[in-house]
Parts: sequence; C-alpha cells; structure tokens
Amino acid sequence: MCQLLGMNCNVPTDICFSFTGFQARGGLTDHHRDGWGIAFFEGRGVRVFLDPKPSVDSPVAELVRQYPIHSLNVIAHIRKATQGEVRLENTHPFQRELWGRYWIFAHNGNLKDFAPALSGRFRPVGCTDSELAFCHILDTLAQRFPDAPPTPAALFEVLAGLAGAIAAHGEFNFLLSNGERLFAHCATRLTYIVRQAPFADAHLNDQDVTVDFSELTTPADRVAVIATTPLTDNERWEAIPPGTLISFSQGAPEETAATGASAGAAEKVTERR
Amino acid sequence: MCQLLGMNCNVPTDICFSFTGFQARGGLTDHHRDGWGIAFFEGRGVRVFLDPKPSVDSPVAELVRQYPIHSLNVIAHIRKATQGEVRLENTHPFQRELWGRYWIFAHNGNLKDFAPALSGRFRPVGCTDSELAFCHILDTLAQRFPDAPPTPAALFEVLAGLAGAIAAHGEFNFLLSNGERLFAHCATRLTYIVRQAPFADAHLNDQDVTVDFSELTTPADRVAVIATTPLTDNERWEAIPPGTLISFSQGAPEETAATGASAGAAEKVTERR
Repeated sequence: MCQLLGMNCNVPTDICFSFTGFQARGGLTDHHRDGWGIAFFEGRGVRVFLDPKPSVDSPVAELVRQYPIHSLNVIAHIRKATQGEVRLENTHPFQRELWGRYWIFAHNGNLKDFAPALSGRFRPVGCTDSELAFCHILDTLAQRFPDAPPTPAALFEVLAGLAGAIAAHGEFNFLLSNGERLFAHCATRLTYIVRQAPFADAHLNDQDVTVDFSELTTPADRVAVIATTPLTDNERWEAIPPGTLISFSQGAPEETAATGASAGAAEKVTERR
Repeated sequence: MCQLLGMNCNVPTDICFSFTGFQARGGLTDHHRDGWGIAFFEGRGVRVFLDPKPSVDSPVAELVRQYPIHSLNVIAHIRKATQGEVRLENTHPFQRELWGRYWIFAHNGNLKDFAPALSGRFRPVGCTDSELAFCHILDTLAQRFPDAPPTPAALFEVLAGLAGAIAAHGEFNFLLSNGERLFAHCATRLTYIVRQAPFADAHLNDQDVTVDFSELTTPADRVAVIATTPLTDNERWEAIPPGTLISFSQGAPEETAATGASAGAAEKVTERR
C-alpha cells in the first residue's frame, strides 16, 4: 500500500516539516520504495515534482524538503506498486485540466475488475488503476457539467457518489484537489489534524524532529494535514471513518459524506472472487 | 522576448551542459527574469519543473543543472513576460493530455488580437497568449482526430497549417512535443544543431564551460538541440528559416514545411494597427 499526504490551509504554508517525516517512509522507516511525487498549488498554477526513485534517496525530495514552497493545497504520495510498473508515467500524483483549473489526484489502495467506460476526453497515460479512476472521475464531472463547474455542494455530492461506486472495486483511499478545496476519501485508513491557535510543539513519528508552530504562525492561521497514518506522536490525529469523503477548505473540514466504501466493503468484494 | 531550448535524441541523454548555458540567460547574461520551466519526457511520462523565480537564482534550476535526468525529448523556456503577470500559472512549458499521451508546449513571441473559438475541452488556466495558442492547437487536433492519433505525416500537416494561421497574429516561435517527436516552429528566430559522431569539444557562449562529447557518447548517439540563439561558440548552428516548422525524431530533422509565418508577416500585422 502507498502513503498519502495532503495539506489544506487558509494562508499559504510550507509543508517542509510534515514532508520530512513523510519522506522517511519512502525507504527509511517504511518500505514504499517505488517512487514518489508532490504537487503544490500556487494561485491557479500547480507544480508537480515526480521521481520514480525512492523518496529517501531522491535529490528532488531533498530539494522539496529544503525549499519552502508556500501553498494552500498540497498532495503528496509515496508509492508501493500494486498495479503498473515502476515508471514515471505510473508515479502519483496525476494532473489534468478541467474547466480551466488544474486537478491533482493520488490514490492509496488497489482496484480490481475496474474498467469504466471513458469518453476519451481524459485517458490514462500509464497503466495504473489509480490514473484510470482519476480519468473516470474527471470524465464523469465533465459530462455532468460540460460548460462550467457546479457549485461546491453539487461537486461534493457527485464526488461522494463516485467515491462509493469506485470503492466497490477495492480499496480506494484518495486525495483530490482543484486548488480551491482538497477532497479526502477514506476507504480503509486516513487520518487528519487541524492545527490552529494556540499552536504548540509537534514531534515527528518518523524522524527525531520537533517544530514549535507558535514561532512560525499567526493566530489566524489554520492548517489541515491529512495522512495515511499520523505523522506526529504528541498530537491528536482524527481517524476518518472508513467510507467517508471530507471536503477541506480554508484549513478545516467543510463537508462530510458517507460513501458506503469501507474496508468491509473491499473485503466483501475480495471474498466474492 | 523569451528563450526556448529543446532537445530530441535517439538515446536518452541528459541536458545538463546545454542547460548550464541556458540557465545563465535567466538574469545573468540576459534579462529574462520572469520565471522558467523545463519538461523531461521519460518513457510515456513527463516531469515538468517550474519556477516563477529567475532561473539564475532558482534552487530548482540548480537541481536540474546538477541532477542528470536522461530523456529523449526536453523542452525548456525562460520567460520575459509580454502578456500575463509573473505567476506560476503563466510559466511555460504548459502540459496537457491528448490521446493518452502528454503534450508539452513553450512559446517565444507575442500574439495580438488572438481569440480562437475553443470547444472547452482544453482551456487556459493562466492568462497568456501562449497557453491559449496551445489549447487551440490541441483542441483542433482533438476535433480533427477524435478517436486516435493520426499518422505522423498527417499530424505534421495539421500542425504546419495551425502554426501559419496562429503566426498571422504575431511572433510565434514555439516548441511542442508528445514525447515521441519534437516540433519546432520558427517565426523569427530559432536555431539548431545535430551532434553525432565524430563528437568533439563544445564551449558555451554564456558561461566558460567546455565539454568533450566524445568522452560521453557512443558512435551511434545522435542529439538535436534547438535554441533561440546558439548556445555554443565553436560549433555550427543552423538558423531555421522564418516561417518553417521542423519535426525532429531520433535526434535529427524528419520533416520540414513552410508555414508562411515570418518576421515580415508579424510586422505587417503590427503595421495594420
């Protein structure tokens, strides 16, 4: 299984601290050695750094850890390949454009017997179930709302339906963002924390590194960090219930929906085979 | 005006030497300080490094200069903004997906009164004439060939027609690649060199750096480098005639077409105003 990391903020924030712990999972404290990637939204633009090498050995990861890019929405992924060779085109996160905005997607899990009909507007370049799911999501959105994006509530409703339907094919934890909101779907395992005033010390699980956020923040700052498992050992992370989609906006959960997807559902699919 | 750099090879090659000279033009030996970017195709995948900072000060450029990424097709761009603020979303090269392949585009020039009708399938995220031209090119290709890519010859013919039509709106030098071929259009200024055996020394124009390619290559290697102006001062670069589209494949020109675009044509447009 892969590792997901996301961040959604109300002011542009760098992810250097969280990335330091996350990077260690790519071959040092965990065995996810099949490449990694990270996407930073800045305004309407997005920068995606990809490397098919393990993140712990990657000079690109070293740059990301040391170069503070300030962003409202970040999605990162460390890969343990289940479907698709270890190649650049199979490295998450994936990027496409819809309605004049970039969309970024990363997936943790494994989908089986998943062959959605695609219109051809969005086609996978690599051969992962993950990129196929992303293309199916965007294809569905483009067909439902061909001319312009829907309201945030309507978008969230369609995404919740898609998350549940796709999760019937297997484990489907994902992070998705259009630069405005960050959508986090838990099928089996995903946690988050909202950091806001009063800020305190945080100490990483995966490296012996502590940061005092009170020295780096203003009282109005709010940052949500989403990760497969907690990144720190002295803060309280919320486990997202399996079968839940959360929309994060301005550094906090905005909407929550049950999608019907869960570890149980995934196991049932497996058992049917 | 901006600076373009492209590379097309018959074996995966790093661009560290050429990039060393090119990077200097982003604020050191030339005044293109409004950001820069570079895209490397690796297999079907592509990595795009973007930085809205001047390339000469950019830690991302320093990484690219020192980290040899081997690629068959590379497109780089240093920006001197004419249209669109200095922002990440206006930083070249631009990326989209069509027919299950990534496409990369960078432009040098300035288009006026350019407002093509777009179907909505490809929409600009930023506000440059360049990204609009890229969306128009892909939109036209998708409408002409909705289900699958055409033959290389048919693709080249449509691109040549588009290059000429768009160049009626102003200066339209560009580099475009789908990871298989690199298309270079000269409206006013673009040069190239094909390096092949017997390889010799090359010395940069913009930095006092020499490389002996005979030490780094095999006799079968062939590399075409395309740049706005020659990058070396001891090799013979070919000036592409204004109003010419060249398709590069396997490190050499494959097809050439007159597009009717030229500095003269661009000036006529200006004079009409």
